[in-house]
Amino acid sequence: MARLVMKFGGTSVGTIERIKNVARKVKREVEAGNEVAVVVSAMSGETNKLVDFCNQISPLHDQREYDAVVATGEQVTTGLLAMALHAEGVKARSWQGWQVPINTDGAHGKARIMSIDTTAMAADMAAGTVAVVAGFQGVGPNRRLSTLGRGGSDTSAVALAAALGARQCDIYTDVDGVYTADPRIVTAARKLDKITYEEMLELASLGAKVLQTRSVEMAMNHRVRVQVLSSLVDKPGTMVVDEEEIVEKQIVSGVTYSSDEAKITLLRVADRPGVAAAIFGPLAEAGVNVDMIIQNIAEDGRHTDLTFTIGRADYERALDVLTREKASIGFEKMLHDKNVVKVSVVGVGMRSHTGVARRMFQTLAEKNINIQAITTSEIKVSVLIGADYTELAVRSLHSAFDLDAA
Amino acid sequence: MARLVMKFGGTSVGTIERIKNVARKVKREVEAGNEVAVVVSAMSGETNKLVDFCNQISPLHDQREYDAVVATGEQVTTGLLAMALHAEGVKARSWQGWQVPINTDGAHGKARIMSIDTTAMAADMAAGTVAVVAGFQGVGPNRRLSTLGRGGSDTSAVALAAALGARQCDIYTDVDGVYTADPRIVTAARKLDKITYEEMLELASLGAKVLQTRSVEMAMNHRVRVQVLSSLVDKPGTMVVDEEEIVEKQIVSGVTYSSDEAKITLLRVADRPGVAAAIFGPLAEAGVNVDMIIQNIAEDGRHTDLTFTIGRADYERALDVLTREKASIGFEKMLHDKNVVKVSVVGVGMRSHTGVARRMFQTLAEKNINIQAITTSEIKVSVLIGADYTELAVRSLHSAFDLDAA
Repeated sequence: MARLVMKFGGTSVGTIERIKNVARKVKREVEAGNEVAVVVSAMSGETNKLVDFCNQISPLHDQREYDAVVATGEQVTTGLLAMALHAEGVKARSWQGWQVPINTDGAHGKARIMSIDTTAMAADMAAGTVAVVAGFQGVGPNRRLSTLGRGGSDTSAVALAAALGARQCDIYTDVDGVYTADPRIVTAARKLDKITYEEMLELASLGAKVLQTRSVEMAMNHRVRVQVLSSLVDKPGTMVVDEEEIVEKQIVSGVTYSSDEAKITLLRVADRPGVAAAIFGPLAEAGVNVDMIIQNIAEDGRHTDLTFTIGRADYERALDVLTREKASIGFEKMLHDKNVVKVSVVGVGMRSHTGVARRMFQTLAEKNINIQAITTSEIKVSVLIGADYTELAVRSLHSAFDLDAA
Repeated sequence: MARLVMKFGGTSVGTIERIKNVARKVKREVEAGNEVAVVVSAMSGETNKLVDFCNQISPLHDQREYDAVVATGEQVTTGLLAMALHAEGVKARSWQGWQVPINTDGAHGKARIMSIDTTAMAADMAAGTVAVVAGFQGVGPNRRLSTLGRGGSDTSAVALAAALGARQCDIYTDVDGVYTADPRIVTAARKLDKITYEEMLELASLGAKVLQTRSVEMAMNHRVRVQVLSSLVDKPGTMVVDEEEIVEKQIVSGVTYSSDEAKITLLRVADRPGVAAAIFGPLAEAGVNVDMIIQNIAEDGRHTDLTFTIGRADYERALDVLTREKASIGFEKMLHDKNVVKVSVVGVGMRSHTGVARRMFQTLAEKNINIQAITTSEIKVSVLIGADYTELAVRSLHSAFDLDAA
């Protein structure tokens, strides 16, 4: 019998009524002949409440105790969903991370799944019992609870699907699939029937909040077929699959943007060997991730202007570090700007088609949108622009790459 | 070094501020040179919220899943208290029931503790780390969470104190000790410095909500010195100890009452062999506990009137059963009354002093209070009276047995 993993996020299990609704969806898959494991998140709001408790006790709390506290959110949902399945006449039992066990590396608050021993669970599933599994958590080598970090339930689901050899992993969420662009901005955006792992990975990294980046990586590595679909409406979502499964490849599959950016420019940096290390070394030590980097030689030929982007959450910290290191780096002035956005076009078709970057730059130029920085990968071109132009840029690119719905 | 178990109930850990207050109390005991294990309940209101969730899913939910859900309440408190201790500079870690492990018989919702393996915890405590233990729960033979039933955290604390060979088990609660009578009714009530296990057991069974009955039984069996004290004020409470520790024994240690009673009278029951079995058999099968029983022979000598008391929670069920069995029992009429209360005087001194019952009846007679039923044990006399007389009876008895504060 085919095994299926279903995953429901916090909004999908946010009320008792919604948990009952989830039970009915699971029942349908059981009746269709699947052996089902369901991975659940905490009821929406619960994790925030628990995190808030921890911060009230002490902002510098122990991560191990943080994990003990927040892991309870998912535990509650597992028990309630198992009960709701019973009420629907479906055999079910809850599995906490330590019961499965889902073994992690014990890095509290951001643990990685090392292995999942599905022996007991698979036997239970084979006997017709739905496994209701707490997402977002596992047990470390020290036998203590460890959580996987925000959004980790997606990763739990994909890892479990891989361990169980499931034919598919359905991620139920509050959107009905992956779109060619954010439908709130581009009314002509279309839902994609299929998307490749690589494209999904770029979209997730670029801030599309549909799937957590790590879960996509894991799906790609283990070739787990993932479907993103809505828990509220009843229709197929978007399949995330291997490139070979997609017959008709588009050059560009989607246009996305991320407001989670900030730009820093160091003016008149001495152009000497080791200066890049002097700048980016201290930033890396402070945990600041640098994304795009542009270097211009200043007019005198002995200095350079250096622009780079970082995540907005790291903004204050980065300014601090650079101010402190000003003397050792040796720059004249620092400019900084949070009012920027990164717009990207993504598509595996780019590998075989040239001219995507050129068409992108041309489209933006026609709208008088100034490009402040550029970064590319094999299947992606990203540009940094002023935040005011976000909607205009995304809509224009969506049209220019023939993505608009007919 | 001496080991100490401290237990804090839901009210004592009901807010973040109170959890911080508990941490300061624990710190003081650590600084006084104790190896400390702290047993905690769920924050007040949390367990009710979780139980309510379960009932909303299905009133007939699976007890195993109920346990998985409600056990999270204590888990949250353990993590938060451990963090609060860290903030006070005290080493601490949380222990869930399955981590200790606290092994139960797996009777979900009302499990009994079978054994506690304190090896790992004791080693940790010896290294100077406070153990913060989730009360009310353990792990069953099936590796699933099982809860001990309401108030089970007291039992967890006493069992842990026994397993650790602790010198004392301090139960912190919202009252500052055991009183000679309910201070809300008897203003002259005095806090007892010491009380025997036997007396405490009677008081707990009679509805004094200070300690859970099972925890007192366990303390008595394992000779664990238990102190009941307030988490809000800073003074000694009442020690529950062996009879030998109490030098000056009082004849009566306390007067208590329970409103959790109901009375049923069956009129003109045929006075034949087997009639008691016909009445009490079906009640026992329905899970109805019968307390006091009185039988009067009716005037004709061939019938009898039978009065008995039951817990008020079983009232409707008992009436149902008796109505259904009316023909097979063969009574003429059923009277029933919830407007009754059981008043008891308790004291180990009764064993060596006669006349307690007589003085009790006389006192009530002087106040024109009619006694509807009587039951006695070696250290207790209980009477059933009309609920309207509760305060009058308790106050009069408190005076009559010389318990009033000077």
